[in-house]
Amino acid sequence: MKTDLNYEKNGGFVIAIAQNYRTREVLMVAHANQEAIDKSAELGLATFWSKSRNKLWTKGLTSGDTLRIVETRADCDRDAVLFLVEPQGSGGACHKTGWFSCFGYKL
Amino acid sequence: MKTDLNYEKNGGFVIAIAQNYRTREVLMVAHANQEAIDKSAELGLATFWSKSRNKLWTKGLTSGDTLRIVETRADCDRDAVLFLVEPQGSGGACHKTGWFSCFGYKL
Repeated sequence: MKTDLNYEKNGGFVIAIAQNYRTREVLMVAHANQEAIDKSAELGLATFWSKSRNKLWTKGLTSGDTLRIVETRADCDRDAVLFLVEPQGSGGACHKTGWFSCFGYKL
Repeated sequence: MKTDLNYEKNGGFVIAIAQNYRTREVLMVAHANQEAIDKSAELGLATFWSKSRNKLWTKGLTSGDTLRIVETRADCDRDAVLFLVEPQGSGGACHKTGWFSCFGYKL
Protein backbone atom coordinates (compact mmCIF):
# COMPACT_ATOMS: atom_id res chain seq x y z
CA MET A 1 0.00 0.00 0.00
CA LYS A 2 1.41 3.38 -1.00
CA THR A 3 0.91 5.40 2.13
CA ASP A 4 3.59 8.13 2.26
CA LEU A 5 4.20 7.33 5.88
CA ASN A 6 7.39 8.59 7.48
CA TYR A 7 9.12 5.52 8.88
CA GLU A 8 12.57 7.10 8.95
CA LYS A 9 11.80 9.55 11.73
CA ASN A 10 11.40 6.77 14.27
CA GLY A 11 13.94 4.12 13.28
CA GLY A 12 11.85 2.40 10.63
CA PHE A 13 8.58 2.46 12.55
CA VAL A 14 5.40 4.43 12.92
CA ILE A 15 3.27 4.34 16.05
CA ALA A 16 0.08 2.37 15.42
CA ILE A 17 -2.95 2.92 17.65
CA ALA A 18 -6.04 0.69 17.57
CA GLN A 19 -9.31 2.33 18.54
CA ASN A 20 -12.73 0.66 18.64
CA TYR A 21 -14.56 2.48 15.85
CA ARG A 22 -17.90 2.21 17.60
CA THR A 23 -17.18 2.77 21.31
CA ARG A 24 -14.12 4.95 20.51
CA GLU A 25 -12.20 3.17 23.26
CA VAL A 26 -8.45 3.16 22.68
CA LEU A 27 -7.56 -0.54 22.72
CA MET A 28 -3.82 -0.75 22.31
CA VAL A 29 -0.77 0.86 20.80
CA ALA A 30 2.32 -0.69 19.24
CA HIS A 31 4.78 -0.11 16.42
CA ALA A 32 4.42 -0.84 12.73
CA ASN A 33 6.96 -0.94 9.93
CA GLN A 34 6.19 -0.88 6.21
CA GLU A 35 5.70 -4.66 6.22
CA ALA A 36 3.13 -4.43 9.02
CA ILE A 37 1.23 -1.65 7.28
CA ASP A 38 1.20 -3.67 4.07
CA LYS A 39 0.00 -6.79 5.89
CA SER A 40 -2.72 -4.78 7.63
CA ALA A 41 -4.03 -3.65 4.27
CA GLU A 42 -3.76 -7.13 2.78
CA LEU A 43 -5.59 -8.92 5.61
CA GLY A 44 -7.83 -6.10 6.73
CA LEU A 45 -6.63 -6.90 10.23
CA ALA A 46 -4.53 -4.67 12.50
CA THR A 47 -0.97 -5.91 12.18
CA PHE A 48 2.01 -4.59 14.07
CA TRP A 49 5.72 -5.29 14.39
CA SER A 50 6.57 -6.93 17.66
CA LYS A 51 9.84 -5.38 18.76
CA SER A 52 10.27 -7.88 21.59
CA ARG A 53 9.73 -10.92 19.36
CA ASN A 54 11.17 -9.19 16.30
CA LYS A 55 8.41 -10.41 14.02
CA LEU A 56 5.21 -9.44 12.28
CA TRP A 57 2.27 -9.59 14.65
CA THR A 58 -1.31 -9.72 13.46
CA LYS A 59 -3.18 -9.09 16.67
CA GLY A 60 -5.29 -12.08 17.73
CA LEU A 61 -4.40 -14.35 14.84
CA THR A 62 -3.92 -17.26 17.25
CA SER A 63 -6.53 -16.30 19.86
CA GLY A 64 -9.20 -15.27 17.38
CA ASP A 65 -9.44 -11.83 18.93
CA THR A 66 -8.44 -10.03 15.78
CA LEU A 67 -9.09 -6.38 15.09
CA ARG A 68 -10.87 -5.85 11.77
CA ILE A 69 -9.87 -2.56 10.23
CA VAL A 70 -12.76 -0.28 9.34
CA GLU A 71 -10.62 2.75 8.55
CA THR A 72 -6.97 3.76 8.75
CA ARG A 73 -5.92 7.32 9.40
CA ALA A 74 -2.50 8.96 9.50
CA ASP A 75 -1.46 11.92 11.60
CA CYS A 76 -0.15 15.22 10.29
CA ASP A 77 3.50 14.19 10.72
CA ARG A 78 2.81 10.93 8.91
CA ASP A 79 4.66 9.07 11.63
CA ALA A 80 1.63 7.57 13.36
CA VAL A 81 -1.46 5.71 12.21
CA LEU A 82 -4.82 5.19 13.82
CA PHE A 83 -6.62 1.95 13.04
CA LEU A 84 -10.35 2.28 13.63
CA VAL A 85 -11.29 -1.32 14.28
CA GLU A 86 -14.09 -3.72 15.02
CA PRO A 87 -12.86 -6.32 17.54
CA GLN A 88 -13.64 -9.90 16.53
CA GLY A 89 -13.88 -13.01 18.70
CA SER A 90 -14.49 -12.38 22.38
CA GLY A 91 -13.54 -8.77 21.85
CA GLY A 92 -10.75 -8.77 24.41
CA ALA A 93 -8.02 -6.71 22.81
CA CYS A 94 -5.62 -7.07 25.69
CA HIS A 95 -3.78 -10.36 25.50
CA LYS A 96 -2.49 -9.89 29.02
CA THR A 97 -5.67 -9.13 30.93
CA GLY A 98 -8.43 -10.19 28.55
CA TRP A 99 -9.96 -6.75 28.95
CA PHE A 100 -11.37 -4.87 26.01
CA SER A 101 -8.62 -2.29 26.30
CA CYS A 102 -4.99 -2.56 27.29
CA PHE A 103 -5.32 0.81 29.01
CA GLY A 104 -6.84 -0.57 32.17
CA TYR A 105 -4.50 1.03 34.67
CA LYS A 106 -5.35 4.35 36.21
CA LEU A 107 -2.30 6.36 37.26
CA MET B 1 5.08 11.05 40.26
CA LYS B 2 5.72 7.38 41.05
CA THR B 3 4.18 5.62 38.10
CA ASP B 4 6.03 2.31 37.55
CA LEU B 5 6.17 3.04 33.88
CA ASN B 6 8.63 1.07 31.76
CA TYR B 7 10.78 3.67 30.03
CA GLU B 8 13.68 1.28 29.39
CA LYS B 9 11.84 -0.84 26.84
CA ASN B 10 11.72 1.99 24.35
CA GLY B 11 14.95 3.94 24.82
CA GLY B 12 13.83 6.07 27.78
CA PHE B 13 10.38 6.84 26.44
CA VAL B 14 6.79 5.74 26.68
CA ILE B 15 4.24 6.39 23.95
CA ALA B 16 1.79 9.07 25.10
CA ILE B 17 -1.63 9.34 23.44
CA ALA B 18 -4.01 12.24 24.02
CA GLN B 19 -7.72 11.47 23.67
CA ASN B 20 -10.58 13.92 24.14
CA TYR B 21 -12.27 12.54 27.26
CA ARG B 22 -15.71 13.66 26.09
CA THR B 23 -15.81 13.01 22.35
CA ARG B 24 -13.27 10.14 22.63
CA GLU B 25 -11.50 11.46 19.57
CA VAL B 26 -7.82 10.54 19.47
CA LEU B 27 -6.09 13.90 19.18
CA MET B 28 -2.38 13.18 18.94
CA VAL B 29 0.40 10.85 19.93
CA ALA B 30 3.99 11.56 20.88
CA HIS B 31 6.69 10.34 23.23
CA ALA B 32 7.17 11.08 26.91
CA ASN B 33 10.10 10.47 29.20
CA GLN B 34 10.01 10.53 33.00
CA GLU B 35 10.46 14.31 32.99
CA ALA B 36 7.46 14.77 30.69
CA ILE B 37 5.28 12.50 32.81
CA ASP B 38 6.32 14.41 35.93
CA LYS B 39 5.62 17.76 34.28
CA SER B 40 2.22 16.51 33.07
CA ALA B 41 1.30 15.65 36.64
CA GLU B 42 2.66 18.94 37.98
CA LEU B 43 0.85 21.18 35.48
CA GLY B 44 -2.18 19.00 34.85
CA LEU B 45 -1.45 19.58 31.16
CA ALA B 46 -0.40 16.96 28.62
CA THR B 47 3.37 17.28 28.27
CA PHE B 48 5.57 15.32 25.92
CA TRP B 49 9.22 15.10 24.96
CA SER B 50 9.87 16.55 21.53
CA LYS B 51 12.41 14.26 19.94
CA SER B 52 12.95 16.63 17.02
CA ARG B 53 13.55 19.67 19.23
CA ASN B 54 15.02 17.59 22.05
CA LYS B 55 13.10 19.41 24.75
CA LEU B 56 10.11 19.20 27.03
CA TRP B 57 6.92 20.12 25.20
CA THR B 58 3.77 21.11 27.01
CA LYS B 59 1.26 21.01 24.18
CA GLY B 60 -0.21 24.43 23.46
CA LEU B 61 1.71 26.37 26.10
CA THR B 62 2.46 29.11 23.57
CA SER B 63 -0.74 28.90 21.48
CA GLY B 64 -3.11 28.49 24.41
CA ASP B 65 -4.45 25.24 23.00
CA THR B 66 -3.37 23.18 25.97
CA LEU B 67 -4.78 19.78 26.84
CA ARG B 68 -6.03 19.64 30.43
CA ILE B 69 -5.59 16.16 31.84
CA VAL B 70 -8.76 14.64 33.29
CA GLU B 71 -7.33 11.17 33.77
CA THR B 72 -4.13 9.30 32.95
CA ARG B 73 -4.11 5.60 32.19
CA ALA B 74 -1.26 3.17 31.52
CA ASP B 75 -1.36 0.09 29.36
CA CYS B 76 -0.67 -3.46 30.48
CA ASP B 77 2.96 -3.33 29.39
CA ARG B 78 3.43 -0.04 31.21
CA ASP B 79 5.17 1.36 28.17
CA ALA B 80 2.35 3.60 26.98
CA VAL B 81 0.06 6.13 28.60
CA LEU B 82 -3.30 7.50 27.58
CA PHE B 83 -4.09 11.06 28.61
CA LEU B 84 -7.82 11.65 28.69
CA VAL B 85 -7.96 15.39 28.14
CA GLU B 86 -10.16 18.42 27.84
CA PRO B 87 -8.81 20.70 25.09
CA GLN B 88 -8.50 24.34 26.15
CA GLY B 89 -8.35 27.47 23.99
CA SER B 90 -9.73 27.06 20.49
CA GLY B 91 -9.60 23.32 20.93
CA GLY B 92 -7.36 22.70 17.95
CA ALA B 93 -4.99 19.98 19.09
CA CYS B 94 -3.13 19.81 15.81
CA HIS B 95 -0.53 22.55 15.60
CA LYS B 96 -0.04 21.87 11.91
CA THR B 97 -3.61 21.95 10.62
CA GLY B 98 -5.55 23.61 13.44
CA TRP B 99 -7.94 20.67 13.36
CA PHE B 100 -9.23 19.11 16.55
CA SER B 101 -7.28 15.95 15.84
CA CYS B 102 -3.92 15.32 14.21
CA PHE B 103 -5.34 12.18 12.64
CA GLY B 104 -7.04 13.95 9.78
CA TYR B 105 -5.64 11.90 6.94
CA LYS B 106 -7.53 8.92 5.64
CA LEU B 107 -5.31 6.23 4.12
